[in-house]
Amino acid sequence: MGQVAWKALFLSLFDYKTEKYVIAKNKKVGVLYRVVQLSILAYLVGWVFVVKKGYQDTDTSLQSSVITKLKGVAFTNTSELGERIWDVADYVIPPQGESVFFVMTNLIVTPNQRQATCAESASIPDALCDRDTDCLEGEAVVAGNGVKTGRCLKDRGSTRGTCEILAWCPVEKRSKPKKPLLGSAENFTVYIKNSIRFPKFKFSKMNVLATDNESYLKSCRYSQEHPYCPIFVLGNIVRWAGGDFQEMALQGGVIGIQIEWNCDLDKAPSECNPHYSFSRLDNKSAETSISSGYNFRFAKYYRDAEGVDYRTLIKAYGIRFDVMVNGKAGKFNIIPTIINISSGLALMGAGAFFCDLVLIYLIKKSNFYRGKKYEEGPLGKVRQALLGTFLPPETIPGCSSRPCACFPRSNSRKSLSSPTLNGNQSPEQLDGL
Amino acid sequence: MGQVAWKALFLSLFDYKTEKYVIAKNKKVGVLYRVVQLSILAYLVGWVFVVKKGYQDTDTSLQSSVITKLKGVAFTNTSELGERIWDVADYVIPPQGESVFFVMTNLIVTPNQRQATCAESASIPDALCDRDTDCLEGEAVVAGNGVKTGRCLKDRGSTRGTCEILAWCPVEKRSKPKKPLLGSAENFTVYIKNSIRFPKFKFSKMNVLATDNESYLKSCRYSQEHPYCPIFVLGNIVRWAGGDFQEMALQGGVIGIQIEWNCDLDKAPSECNPHYSFSRLDNKSAETSISSGYNFRFAKYYRDAEGVDYRTLIKAYGIRFDVMVNGKAGKFNIIPTIINISSGLALMGAGAFFCDLVLIYLIKKSNFYRGKKYEEGPLGKVRQALLGTFLPPETIPGCSSRPCACFPRSNSRKSLSSPTLNGNQSPEQLDGL
Amino acid sequence: MGQVAWKALFLSLFDYKTEKYVIAKNKKVGVLYRVVQLSILAYLVGWVFVVKKGYQDTDTSLQSSVITKLKGVAFTNTSELGERIWDVADYVIPPQGESVFFVMTNLIVTPNQRQATCAESASIPDALCDRDTDCLEGEAVVAGNGVKTGRCLKDRGSTRGTCEILAWCPVEKRSKPKKPLLGSAENFTVYIKNSIRFPKFKFSKMNVLATDNESYLKSCRYSQEHPYCPIFVLGNIVRWAGGDFQEMALQGGVIGIQIEWNCDLDKAPSECNPHYSFSRLDNKSAETSISSGYNFRFAKYYRDAEGVDYRTLIKAYGIRFDVMVNGKAGKFNIIPTIINISSGLALMGAGAFFCDLVLIYLIKKSNFYRGKKYEEGPLGKVRQALLGTFLPPETIPGCSSRPCACFPRSNSRKSLSSPTLNGNQSPEQLDGL
Repeated sequence: MGQVAWKALFLSLFDYKTEKYVIAKNKKVGVLYRVVQLSILAYLVGWVFVVKKGYQDTDTSLQSSVITKLKGVAFTNTSELGERIWDVADYVIPPQGESVFFVMTNLIVTPNQRQATCAESASIPDALCDRDTDCLEGEAVVAGNGVKTGRCLKDRGSTRGTCEILAWCPVEKRSKPKKPLLGSAENFTVYIKNSIRFPKFKFSKMNVLATDNESYLKSCRYSQEHPYCPIFVLGNIVRWAGGDFQEMALQGGVIGIQIEWNCDLDKAPSECNPHYSFSRLDNKSAETSISSGYNFRFAKYYRDAEGVDYRTLIKAYGIRFDVMVNGKAGKFNIIPTIINISSGLALMGAGAFFCDLVLIYLIKKSNFYRGKKYEEGPLGKVRQALLGTFLPPETIPGCSSRPCACFPRSNSRKSLSSPTLNGNQSPEQLDGL
Repeated sequence: MGQVAWKALFLSLFDYKTEKYVIAKNKKVGVLYRVVQLSILAYLVGWVFVVKKGYQDTDTSLQSSVITKLKGVAFTNTSELGERIWDVADYVIPPQGESVFFVMTNLIVTPNQRQATCAESASIPDALCDRDTDCLEGEAVVAGNGVKTGRCLKDRGSTRGTCEILAWCPVEKRSKPKKPLLGSAENFTVYIKNSIRFPKFKFSKMNVLATDNESYLKSCRYSQEHPYCPIFVLGNIVRWAGGDFQEMALQGGVIGIQIEWNCDLDKAPSECNPHYSFSRLDNKSAETSISSGYNFRFAKYYRDAEGVDYRTLIKAYGIRFDVMVNGKAGKFNIIPTIINISSGLALMGAGAFFCDLVLIYLIKKSNFYRGKKYEEGPLGKVRQALLGTFLPPETIPGCSSRPCACFPRSNSRKSLSSPTLNGNQSPEQLDGL
Repeated sequence: MGQVAWKALFLSLFDYKTEKYVIAKNKKVGVLYRVVQLSILAYLVGWVFVVKKGYQDTDTSLQSSVITKLKGVAFTNTSELGERIWDVADYVIPPQGESVFFVMTNLIVTPNQRQATCAESASIPDALCDRDTDCLEGEAVVAGNGVKTGRCLKDRGSTRGTCEILAWCPVEKRSKPKKPLLGSAENFTVYIKNSIRFPKFKFSKMNVLATDNESYLKSCRYSQEHPYCPIFVLGNIVRWAGGDFQEMALQGGVIGIQIEWNCDLDKAPSECNPHYSFSRLDNKSAETSISSGYNFRFAKYYRDAEGVDYRTLIKAYGIRFDVMVNGKAGKFNIIPTIINISSGLALMGAGAFFCDLVLIYLIKKSNFYRGKKYEEGPLGKVRQALLGTFLPPETIPGCSSRPCACFPRSNSRKSLSSPTLNGNQSPEQLDGL
């Protein structure tokens, strides 16, 4: 016997068990369910597969290297500096050609500063004084340039002066040129060399066109017509970012250059191309003086014949360019394909759940369908029998007009497998269809 | 006929097919299922929707721009340098005001280094020598400052000396001040200007309070009471990061300033505010001398009247501040809302699967419910009939006390749709409920 | 009555409703379904849990701090510079020891440049001229070094010359040494100190071995045998990245050093170790002269006794190293565990859906199983009765050889709960099994 039973058990392992469905011939819910199914299918095909390329394995851990190189010279003729040429080594900070670079477009030069004592700038509130006791010796001037020596320096005849300070003297004059000194930086060009690599797919590419025509790469300029030329005119970048170069050159600012690589590696490598976009990163709208523009101070240090240090302080205004690279690559892979299809099918189950709710709670004949959907378990008839003694048949769900007590056995039978069979035949329900 | 059949087929497309359920009046499993349902609902509502805001489309590709500006002067009076003022151009490296900046708080200055020959520092093991042959000419000193010339230099009367090297001479003395030279950097302030933009939602904001009160922004300091003031005292930053400024100023270290933007764009833009947090990034606990602190060497190059280069070597200790910005924005969107609800409903299916397992395998009457749940297919009764000839009825699952052969037709009927109908009526099972 | 009905309703809340299944004794579909189930189980256990560690909560928002420090000196002897020693302060740019650093390996020095007029380099096409009118005064030389003064300078006897320009004179000579000047940089070492922190799990670690043996950290070099030594020889890094140091030293290039932290925090902290990998980031294959190598220009500014600025221009070739840190940590958490198991179970539903399709559409007896699976709703028999008047019974699905009109009541009964009961008994279908 044992062997036969085990064989039966083993065979039953390969019986396929499928959910039993009840066909509810309700066209409203039927149409609703088809609409839900179509929506899910449209979402799955349109959004997940076509738009999001759900059939692909993706690599977002882009390895990127950016090298930038500026070209251009500017000529200035000011009373302070005389005729002067500015080249790359003068105006690019830092010089390394990294992904973040600053082009100096305006500057306030304070030459020959030495460690000494002098009057603090009158524009600093904390430095104003009436008498020496206003200038506490050894105290640093708040937001100022040095440490107070304890004396109050006044111009001849005036009652109010500024504290004497120990500082790099003379202190910087707070006057910015009305016109950017290096406004011609608008015509400078920057060559942005961007190599990327998707390690998962071992795919490398550069933003430089693979061409034999080397002179093209030396003379081209990026534009709508030349989308794969990696040389950009600074003035164009600022304009595309929605700024005005001369105005930014005066105050300074920050421009973002986004390079987006969105590569479908199921296609040819030549289809994988960078997409550039430009945006102004510093919030121009905030027009409070404390938060507008971009500038910083740096100094060049010299030593005179006596070995004493002196320096030239430069307050540099200019445009900082941040090159930001991101991207992702996708390639067909069976695992995400199956997962996404399966998730879509699982969504169908949620759609069915929703339609079930409509069917058994919201529509007119929901009571009827509820009885049809839920086959009562073994105790059902017992409870109904018990309840039946207290309740009129109409109050028992799915038993409204049933001749409940007529054929006890066959009735209990029916109440189990399809309690609403008779309800089915009642005129009121046929009318309801 | 064809037309009618096609019409019937077409109409049947809109029949709604719903799963047939069996009501198992088992309170234990029923309660279990309700608990599972409530848990999933709580997870869906509480975690997915309220905590994770699953009804929102999110943008995590934050575009951020950070501009930093330090303010403060320090006064030092050392035997080496005399009275000296240090201002921003002196102690901030690099000067550009980027998101990573270093504030020099301590330094070892080696002035007037020239290309020459001199004795290597005695603290370098590889440079120690007893005789000239220990100093192989042209060999670089391991972890040293120059290239050996082949001579061993000894102090008068000592037997052990150091190799002579060609290097920037004199070489740096390995003695660090006991007290940070620029300890007063604790009172310096840094103004951190952070503009962000969420490109997907075209939403921009700054961390600077939009206020007419400009003097507030000039005088405020960030603290619990002033969470929207972007000016930070360095000493406070270090304290909030769990460090001690004077101790860090001596050895150097790295502090991270995280700015977190977590914006719910369904609310007013003014609700989208940065949250700052501070942490010490270099592992302070590792107290091996090789891995503690932060310092680097740089040089200022000069040229004397004869055109010979000389330099001042500076070993700078200090605190590097890394400003790191991240954030995400969310806005209501119908797609993630539906996806999340649907996923929650799909989870319900998993819950039902789990309860089914309990029902048909784990509880006392599982045999009975198994029969109820699985309606046997067409061959069932044939196999049972076959098996019945070999096995006593009790060994056939769901057939324990059934009068298997009495009314062949109605019995086979029952064995199909509800094989355990009679079992239902057996006293043993009624007792079991 | 109310109380009893409410109690019944309340009790029915805890009735467990389970889907009714039909056992289809079709071994093909049964085996298919078991295969699908096993595949999903294998995917769930093997991929989601073992490979992807789906039972863990993960933190990918790594906080990282990188400090780099180079060691090494190089000796050069050129006609231009004489005997010269290069140390860290000379060849590392920028000096701060950040995660991106550049080691100068070759250079073109143009000393004593002053603001003056001189002939433009003959290698710039735009500067070539036959007569003065070719050199428009005030116009900048395209890709050149200065602004034209309007004169055409010719060598004695030649008919073609170059424009005179106002620039930093003399201009740079376009000749690169054939051999890298600082080729011995191959033996320089870099100490990379990387501290990481996973904020979610409050877990910190360093890439420096926690050891008492301090001299080990001073003398070790990273290699396969010493995977936890953070000191790297530059030549090795380049070799591991697939490059040739001397060739890269000549032209310049960019090397990426990836540090990967992949920490399973369910294990001991000592199991969480960095994994290093090295790759060449600039695309070496692109052999157009415009896009190969890495170099930039910077200048050292001096001031002579008369207060006139002059500078030394340096075109630096070298290797830029980008240290990139990423990682993730995982720790057991009940929420992702449950979510992943549930998603796996939901996938089972999709598998069942797929098998259902096979069962009711693709196999030979699909018609039969369709009828078995879908129990017809109340109108079914009415429609069938109506259709029956026009169609022979065989055309009605699931009704092929049924004695449709014999016992109206019991027949309608059967057509509801299992319309194919009789079909079951027909020889044709038994043969089909």
